[in-house]
Parts: sequence; structure tokens; C-alpha cells
Amino acid sequence: MAVYTEVNDEDLSRFVAGYGLGELRSYKGIAEGVENTNYLVECSTGRFILTLYEKRVDPKDLPFFLGLMEHLAISGIRCPTPLRDRHGQHLSELAGRPAALVTFLDGVFVRRPEPKHCALVGKALADLHHAARGYGLTRPNALGPEGWRPLYERFAARADEVRPGLAALIEKELAQLLPSWPKGLPQGIIHADLFPDNVFFLGGEVSGLIDFYFACNDWLAYDLAICLNAWCFEADFSFNVTKGQALIRGYESVRPLEAAERATLPLLARGAALRFLLTRAHDWLNTAQGALVDPHDPFDYVRRLRFHQAVRSAREYGLEESA
Amino acid sequence: MAVYTEVNDEDLSRFVAGYGLGELRSYKGIAEGVENTNYLVECSTGRFILTLYEKRVDPKDLPFFLGLMEHLAISGIRCPTPLRDRHGQHLSELAGRPAALVTFLDGVFVRRPEPKHCALVGKALADLHHAARGYGLTRPNALGPEGWRPLYERFAARADEVRPGLAALIEKELAQLLPSWPKGLPQGIIHADLFPDNVFFLGGEVSGLIDFYFACNDWLAYDLAICLNAWCFEADFSFNVTKGQALIRGYESVRPLEAAERATLPLLARGAALRFLLTRAHDWLNTAQGALVDPHDPFDYVRRLRFHQAVRSAREYGLEESA
Repeated sequence: MAVYTEVNDEDLSRFVAGYGLGELRSYKGIAEGVENTNYLVECSTGRFILTLYEKRVDPKDLPFFLGLMEHLAISGIRCPTPLRDRHGQHLSELAGRPAALVTFLDGVFVRRPEPKHCALVGKALADLHHAARGYGLTRPNALGPEGWRPLYERFAARADEVRPGLAALIEKELAQLLPSWPKGLPQGIIHADLFPDNVFFLGGEVSGLIDFYFACNDWLAYDLAICLNAWCFEADFSFNVTKGQALIRGYESVRPLEAAERATLPLLARGAALRFLLTRAHDWLNTAQGALVDPHDPFDYVRRLRFHQAVRSAREYGLEESA
Repeated sequence: MAVYTEVNDEDLSRFVAGYGLGELRSYKGIAEGVENTNYLVECSTGRFILTLYEKRVDPKDLPFFLGLMEHLAISGIRCPTPLRDRHGQHLSELAGRPAALVTFLDGVFVRRPEPKHCALVGKALADLHHAARGYGLTRPNALGPEGWRPLYERFAARADEVRPGLAALIEKELAQLLPSWPKGLPQGIIHADLFPDNVFFLGGEVSGLIDFYFACNDWLAYDLAICLNAWCFEADFSFNVTKGQALIRGYESVRPLEAAERATLPLLARGAALRFLLTRAHDWLNTAQGALVDPHDPFDYVRRLRFHQAVRSAREYGLEESA
């Protein structure tokens, strides 16, 4: 939530001219996106978001992300559409960073999602999975199960600084989850980070999905499991089954889950909680004092994990028996 | 340059409804304004800037600032115009902060001002001084000469932590400046902080003056002296007399300086450098590690001060002999 890279007016004027967007009318650094620097740029031809990719994004992945957004937009998904410059390129350079311009989306993200929002986001997620099917590029999930242990090992010695007992909890979870992780589920491109701040609503509809910088190929149901974690827990970490039911119903209104996906949903939800616990604990221990971004509390995901550990069937998430 | 206070979508929707602005379409926290939290808010009726006043602004001063902006806007100055809510009030409350909505201004501030920008800003400053004449409220300059010693005493014991010798330099400067500070110059409302990031340009014209939260009553020529410091030094702290001449010419094209103002301009410029040296040194020593804002280097103003100390006449700033 910060502007890491300053852009001067002369460089930006030249940059937007390279897209044929007319005169630069204003630009404001916006507090959106934890990983990158974003500006809201107004030209005489319209409004755009300029993203400067900071060091946590691997430049090699950018063609995958930008190509995906373009593919999705063409396929009818409301998401930022990357502009092509006069050389036909999505990606350029500005202020020493890889840079892209995307379309601006109206809408507001909801701080306190209600069941109706969960239903809409479930449907939007399935629409996204459908729309992404024809996309030609692939990207492995660096934060999938194969990445969990290496990530954990980067902070294992200090894990108990987050909370005593965290190391043992993660060790046990890895030992249980990794050997039993589902295989052979329906796969495709997943968003992998569809939290409430990445979904805009307007007039009671989803008006945009943003932040595709974790998108990758993985089990489609894992994306739904991430959303169960992201959308259906209350502030006190109790699971709201009404929201879970709305989310899953919304998803299944477009793409009904297969039996194997239904059976493994609790495991997938547990893995998703572990994945966010790992990255948050890592960031928590590695955020320099004085950083611009407050790290999220990793322990929020221990509480979610404990819920998933006790779940015996996907019915506890609100999944209804198939007819 | 940060968002200190988060606003949720429900509260903001209610807030904009209180101004009759229609549906909230989007809002983004923007990295603008060191002192306050700002959001760019888009409603179905237009675009606005929402400001939440943080603790460095005294709420008692807000009616002066907001009334001034309204007065200036009505008088033809391009500046943010505060909206009145359905109760006719400029000031409201949101997320536990005093809050106001002002009009959005197109334009871009220049990172590297050229003489043409200095000429335009000089004229805009004089226009502002003229337009403010009919404003009914007054506000003393808390950062004027009477405030300098009390401000210095808050960090005097630690001044040499900024740079060895700074305490002696400030002591000597206060001893010289305070007894000789000009009296009886033309006075009125001054902006008092018209730095390049507070002036928007568009299409070769000034399209807006912003950030009136230091405005107060003081010598008008002191405002020009602040601008000499803010606009006419190069990155290596050399004074660019071409820019100085452009700034003063621009100012005098609207309001010619009086003889007493011309004679005291070097002293006023020196006082302005001391004023920014004092606030920067104070902030430098009092910015907590981990703060969201990097304090400016106070020593930049020691370098300016040294230039002003050697100036013998306003001609060295580019002031031309009166005809």
C-alpha cells in the first residue's frame, strides 16, 4: 500500500505519448497493491492505472500476467486490460522499472463481505476459470505444495518468534498435508489471491477482478478453497457457513464441482490456510522496521487452519449434496 | 505521502450521500499531502478529493482554511473548492477524523521547474494575494519569527545530531534576524508553502494551487521570499538568477513590490530559509523510525541560508530596478 518509485512528469508524459493517449492531465500515486507501485493516470483520452513492478515480481513472469489479463478481458471478464504501446508491446520501462498501463475499473471493494458478495464472487471465480481455458501460456504455482517446505525452511529457525509453538504446528501440518495432497483434479489457470480487496463491486454486481500477479496453473478447486479462507471467516475467525454456501453455490452455478473436488475440499482449504500462514509468517519475520507496509498477522491463519483441521466433510463449508 | 486512516466503503457511501453526490463509483487512497490522508473519490456526479485531517492539523484552524479556499475559488483562483453538505457545512467527520470534500483539479506538478514555470507561479502568487484581500477571517503565522525560537528550543539540545555546528548556526541566525525583521510591510493572506508540489500545470498554464494548510496573515513579500527558496535553487543548491528574475517579474506583473519590500527581500528570503530549516530539523529529530514519511534533509536549507547571508541586495535575486 505504498508508492515505492517516484515518476516525474516529463518521463510520464513521454511514456503516455508512446501509447498515443494524448496529453497527460494528472497522475496520483495510489495506495493499492502491496507489491507494486501504482499511479492513477488521467490522459485526454481516458483514465488508466500505471503499474511499476517492484522487486518482488519476477520480470520473467510479466508476459504471462499481462497476456492473461488481455486474454480474460477479450473473453468477457471485467479485469484490467493492458494497453499495447505503438510497438505493440504490453511491457515497457519507466523510472528504471518494468512498467505497464492497464484500463481503469470503476467499483469499490467491500470491507465486510455479506453472503450476497460471496455468491457473486463464487460465480465470478468460475467465470474466470472458464474464460482462462483458451490461454496459451502456463505458469507453475510457486506457492503450491512443492514450495511450502522450501519457504518454511527460510524462516524455520525463527518461526517461534511469531508465536511459541508455530514451528511444531507447521512441521506437523507439512508432514500430514504433503503426502495426502490431492492429485489429478481438474486443473487450469487460477487467480490464487482473490481476496476481498481484489474484487470491485458496483450497483450490486462484480465490476472488476484485479491483481493477477499470483495467477498460475493449479487445481481449480484450490482457488475456491482460497476464497473460502478469504471470504467466509468472520472477524472472530468463526466460519460463516451461510457465506460458504453462497460462495460454493455461486461457483457451481457456472461450474459444478466433480466428486473428487468435493471430497478433497477440506484438504484444499487446509492447504490454502497453510500457504497464507507461511507467506505471512515469512513476511512478518522479514519486514524491516520502518517498512511502508504493515505485515498481516500470520496467526489469523493458524486460527483458520485449526477450523479446517476439524472439518470432516465439505458439507461443513456449506457444500450441498449433488442431486 | 501516505494513507494514515482507512475508510470503509459503507461509511464513505453514507458520507457522499450527505453531499447529494449520487452513487460512489470508486475511491483510492492517494500519496499526496504529507500531513493528511487523501482519497480520490469518484461519484456518479464527478470526481473529488476527500481529506481526513490528521493530528498535525489543529481542527480549530479548519474553518479558516476551508473558508479561504472557497473565497479564493469564488474570486477566480484555481484551487480546490470545498463542497458544502446538506446542512451547509464544509466540515464533517469520517472514520473518526475531521473530513472535507473538495473539487478535483486537473494538472501535474513539475519536478524540475524551468524559468517559464517560475514566471507563471510568480503571477499566480500575486493573483492569490489579490484575491484573498476580501477574506474575512485571519490566522496568525505560527511559523513566523515569533515562533522560531520556541520551535528551536524544542530540539536545541539535539540540534547538533543533525549536523555538528547546527545549534551555533541557528543561535547566531536567530540573534541576527529577529531584531532586524522587517516591520510595516504590506500584509495579507499568504500561502506560506507554495512549493512545486503544490502547483499544478496543464497546457502551459497554472491549473491549480493546492495545500492551503499553512495559509496565514503575514507580509506578502515573505510569501515571495518562500517561493525564491522553493523554486529558484538548483539541485546543487546554486541560486538560478534567471528563475529568480522570472518569479519576481511574474509577481510584479500583477503587484509591483514597494520600495520597503525590495529593500528587505534578502532578509525575508533568509528568514524563510531559517523557517524551513527549523521545521525540517525538528521533524528530522522527531520522526519515529518506521514512519511512513521520509523527513527532508534539513541541511538543504543551511545551504540556502548561506547563499542568502551573502546577498547584499535584491538585485542578486533577479529583481530589476524600478523604472
